[in-house]
Amino acid sequence: MHSPWFGEFMGTMVLVLLGNGVCAGVTLRKSYAANSGWIVVTTGWALAVMCGVLVAQGFGAHGALNPAITLANDVVSGHYEDLLSLWSAQMLGAVCGATLMTLHYGPHWAQTEDPAAKLGIFCTGPAIKAPMWNLLSEIIGTALLVVVAGAIFSPGVAPNGPAAGVGTWLVASLVWGIGLSLGGTTGYAINPARDLGPRLTHAILPIPGKGRSNWSYAPIPVLGPLIGGVLAGLLVKFTHPW
Amino acid sequence: MHSPWFGEFMGTMVLVLLGNGVCAGVTLRKSYAANSGWIVVTTGWALAVMCGVLVAQGFGAHGALNPAITLANDVVSGHYEDLLSLWSAQMLGAVCGATLMTLHYGPHWAQTEDPAAKLGIFCTGPAIKAPMWNLLSEIIGTALLVVVAGAIFSPGVAPNGPAAGVGTWLVASLVWGIGLSLGGTTGYAINPARDLGPRLTHAILPIPGKGRSNWSYAPIPVLGPLIGGVLAGLLVKFTHPW
Amino acid sequence: MHSPWFGEFMGTMVLVLLGNGVCAGVTLRKSYAANSGWIVVTTGWALAVMCGVLVAQGFGAHGALNPAITLANDVVSGHYEDLLSLWSAQMLGAVCGATLMTLHYGPHWAQTEDPAAKLGIFCTGPAIKAPMWNLLSEIIGTALLVVVAGAIFSPGVAPNGPAAGVGTWLVASLVWGIGLSLGGTTGYAINPARDLGPRLTHAILPIPGKGRSNWSYAPIPVLGPLIGGVLAGLLVKFTHPW
Amino acid sequence: MHSPWFGEFMGTMVLVLLGNGVCAGVTLRKSYAANSGWIVVTTGWALAVMCGVLVAQGFGAHGALNPAITLANDVVSGHYEDLLSLWSAQMLGAVCGATLMTLHYGPHWAQTEDPAAKLGIFCTGPAIKAPMWNLLSEIIGTALLVVVAGAIFSPGVAPNGPAAGVGTWLVASLVWGIGLSLGGTTGYAINPARDLGPRLTHAILPIPGKGRSNWSYAPIPVLGPLIGGVLAGLLVKFTHPW
Repeated sequence: MHSPWFGEFMGTMVLVLLGNGVCAGVTLRKSYAANSGWIVVTTGWALAVMCGVLVAQGFGAHGALNPAITLANDVVSGHYEDLLSLWSAQMLGAVCGATLMTLHYGPHWAQTEDPAAKLGIFCTGPAIKAPMWNLLSEIIGTALLVVVAGAIFSPGVAPNGPAAGVGTWLVASLVWGIGLSLGGTTGYAINPARDLGPRLTHAILPIPGKGRSNWSYAPIPVLGPLIGGVLAGLLVKFTHPW
Repeated sequence: MHSPWFGEFMGTMVLVLLGNGVCAGVTLRKSYAANSGWIVVTTGWALAVMCGVLVAQGFGAHGALNPAITLANDVVSGHYEDLLSLWSAQMLGAVCGATLMTLHYGPHWAQTEDPAAKLGIFCTGPAIKAPMWNLLSEIIGTALLVVVAGAIFSPGVAPNGPAAGVGTWLVASLVWGIGLSLGGTTGYAINPARDLGPRLTHAILPIPGKGRSNWSYAPIPVLGPLIGGVLAGLLVKFTHPW
Repeated sequence: MHSPWFGEFMGTMVLVLLGNGVCAGVTLRKSYAANSGWIVVTTGWALAVMCGVLVAQGFGAHGALNPAITLANDVVSGHYEDLLSLWSAQMLGAVCGATLMTLHYGPHWAQTEDPAAKLGIFCTGPAIKAPMWNLLSEIIGTALLVVVAGAIFSPGVAPNGPAAGVGTWLVASLVWGIGLSLGGTTGYAINPARDLGPRLTHAILPIPGKGRSNWSYAPIPVLGPLIGGVLAGLLVKFTHPW
Repeated sequence: MHSPWFGEFMGTMVLVLLGNGVCAGVTLRKSYAANSGWIVVTTGWALAVMCGVLVAQGFGAHGALNPAITLANDVVSGHYEDLLSLWSAQMLGAVCGATLMTLHYGPHWAQTEDPAAKLGIFCTGPAIKAPMWNLLSEIIGTALLVVVAGAIFSPGVAPNGPAAGVGTWLVASLVWGIGLSLGGTTGYAINPARDLGPRLTHAILPIPGKGRSNWSYAPIPVLGPLIGGVLAGLLVKFTHPW
């Protein structure tokens, strides 16, 4: 069970269990974390990334946990052999993580009425609906994610990379920063699997009092991150800073 | 005094003194930290784990501080010789930590009326009473704790483990993440000693205006973590990712 | 594209995109981060510094991202050859970062009425207008920044500097601390490029419902940091603690 | 200027400038950080410790910044030669730091009426006045500080100590934890210089609208930490865990 595929699967499952989990904690009316605000949401997602990356690497994967990062890596390397395999692991992991999160908050779903709030626990939506601007937000956020994550492990920062374990903390903090600073517009999907996987889960599972899954918005948090990943990959490929 | 038993005792005492302490600070009406919210509770517990692990290791223990983690380790190794000894250290440490916390907040107990709030400083209770779901929450939280904690020290993350001191920070951050993301349902005991020890302390000590110790809920934060620990231990044992 | 100039440009762009970004997130009325408070603002700026330094170093720069720090370094070394070149990179980076931030929050500008609030997203202003006191605040904050940042990499802290990646985290945390403790008076510009660049951007870009750019205050967050940087540089030069 | 005395002086000055600073930011009515809560206060003090320790070590000191820690170290080593010298550096540094903080917030003092709130920016006071209990709180907090700080650098945690720079972060986080969990009762002085120095400063400086300096409480945050330090020192000396 020690393989890139299984590691990406397990890591993305942990990422989404904890990431969707903090959204549930803050949103569901009876939760102890109800209404605890943006600092809780963003810290929770940052630590979800930390845990997901650790588990993915423990099980033998690189720990991208994100189809846009995997694509960006492939753009830089010029090799796309692993793309569909890792994408499938990330998507399946996201669906399983969202399912576990749904079970974790079992009796809470019936106690919160607002169907839109419930959807917001699973997947992102725009604060102001404006498709091209929303797409741009996701492109900027993801491109930044790819460039800074690359920099963390570049020789310019440290010839042999960060001290063991420190790189994972910096990556988590990077996602913390993106959330705090850029998350206010679209909820920073910056990861197609993190958005599409739980949206599918929301559509499939019999969640009490759920509404529609807002499929009309679904392409943006998939395409935006993929475009952002490719653009950042091209930037790295042609300026080769590292 | 340099031994695994004494280290687990001291570390768990520190864990519960600080962990129960942050609950007291946020709950007791006259405290400077009154009503400071979920970010304070979860950060406080994370740093309680950090301090507890450091003290336990300083005194010569591994620093599990948690019967469920000790059990999970024993499931993986197949050796159970140390189990009851370490459990006793953890339970006794938790009782002593809760007692110290009670003394620390000495004159505050009489100034807060709500007996249920006072109990909530010592031990956990469900946001929505639903025993099987509550048990599941504790199983999921603890299993995640064991798997991610194992991953932190696995060769997949770093061949020789995290740089000195970084592992402890990552473990604390892991508990921060579990609290933020999964704590909203049952208050994340994820540790039988952390819940049962202070519950006993609450039952025994003459705390002004205290109520019942809610023994009917007590089995769940003991059994849930133990089951979660065993399941995670079996997962690690049979997939042996590290 | 691997050069000190390009690195400072890219790093300062990231710094301002994320730093201005968190101000936008907290200020703009429809943002998910609206009104999330000082902990969000200061954590966001700290992580903006972390990301900016990482990108700057990845692209081959030192990662000052701040004309006052570059000047302080030159005061210590006695060599000023790079000064104007790096200042131009930092200023241009700040303008580009503020522009990207403006695009990121595209449809949000029209939804918030208060022109002063919008200006506060780009650049700083005093909580109480009192030019000499405001100048002093910026001098103190920047001098502290320079001295502590120098200490982080001094042999007294560690003979060979912090473990790889740890220094960047400490620098980010230093800015976190300055913000929390000293930011309440003038909003802690502590960096001429971070204030003047976005102020220019605010003046130039056609932002819906914007007001004046408060040029009368503009000299203070430029001169204060430069004076603070020189004073701290002289302190280091003549006491040479490291 | 590279000496233990000067380092302790500079470090404690930074500690109190930033520590008192965050109290001012949260308390003064017109500050941008006004009413931002316990998470801001405790994070600010933690980072104040981080910055103070870094500066102290950069200038050649150990970085205790705290007469109680210096005393505890001397109890463990049995050598008291440096005690009064370092105490004088710490006290003088605290007075200078509080003075700098007063200047930093210059025009703000006249804009906040409550004299007790202003005193609370400089020094601690009890949430509930109960001298013996308040003393006990300070003893417990300081003893914990000494024991955990010792553990961080003990061979049980890492044979050669934490990776460079990581120890400072763990010490800062330790103070973060003590503040969050135990600060609610007396405001966690846990350091005689941090309380007495600024109290003197408050008594001497002509702060607009200031009240009395509450000298009747002053002995407690001096004696409590010293007693806690001695007890923790004795615990370490006689159990010698490290």
